[in-house]
Amino acid sequence: MATEIRPVPLPEDYLDLFEKRSFAHLATLMPSGSPQVTPVWVDYDGTHVLVNSARGRQKDRNMRNRPQVALCIADPDNPYRYLAVRGTVVAVTEEGATEHIDQLAGRYTGRARYVGPPGRRVLYKVRPERVSTMG
Amino acid sequence: MATEIRPVPLPEDYLDLFEKRSFAHLATLMPSGSPQVTPVWVDYDGTHVLVNSARGRQKDRNMRNRPQVALCIADPDNPYRYLAVRGTVVAVTEEGATEHIDQLAGRYTGRARYVGPPGRRVLYKVRPERVSTMG
Repeated sequence: MATEIRPVPLPEDYLDLFEKRSFAHLATLMPSGSPQVTPVWVDYDGTHVLVNSARGRQKDRNMRNRPQVALCIADPDNPYRYLAVRGTVVAVTEEGATEHIDQLAGRYTGRARYVGPPGRRVLYKVRPERVSTMG
Repeated sequence: MATEIRPVPLPEDYLDLFEKRSFAHLATLMPSGSPQVTPVWVDYDGTHVLVNSARGRQKDRNMRNRPQVALCIADPDNPYRYLAVRGTVVAVTEEGATEHIDQLAGRYTGRARYVGPPGRRVLYKVRPERVSTMG
């Protein structure tokens, strides 16, 4: 009998964070088990929190090896208001990842396409399991 | 023969982050080994990165049990400029912790004293072991 963990819905009154230029600080686990944290653009598809990175980066390697992650998404207009999520990377795919980073670029930079270091884009879907808010 | 890990010095050209109202996103490890991340005020004594929390909070319990942490300190004026630190909590003390949070309150809020939820303040000293910068 398989146990399916249900994604925790994110609170409605914090979904505006996914329309703003809000950064998520993403914590992943190094091979040693110690944490690493970097800022990333962030998105939400109504079920999963979406993160986009490039193949071979430290966070890419970490999430492939150890899917437990945490994110903290702060309101760019008020650093004391934030949404903190703990969860599991349930999908890692290159499918649609380029389109997705271009879409994020639109929101975060106002440009139609992503301009950044080269690399094959990867999309990660994070299932929220614990959610807390502040502010 | 004891092996002493030397703290990595933080780069001079990022020390301005410790004069601004820069938030650190602190990743700690839950008892399960999965990460947790929350924003905190942050300080640097020239050797250790200093974090201040209150006794009994999740991050307090996490740092006492598993001293491996990571911090990402972003420039409040430019989210693409940041200092990322991985390291170990080498001291946890209540000594001087109240004075320290009042000092941080001065920098972050302009008030002479910290106003916040009650609790015994705790000061954590993080030895930087891996340091990277962006922007």
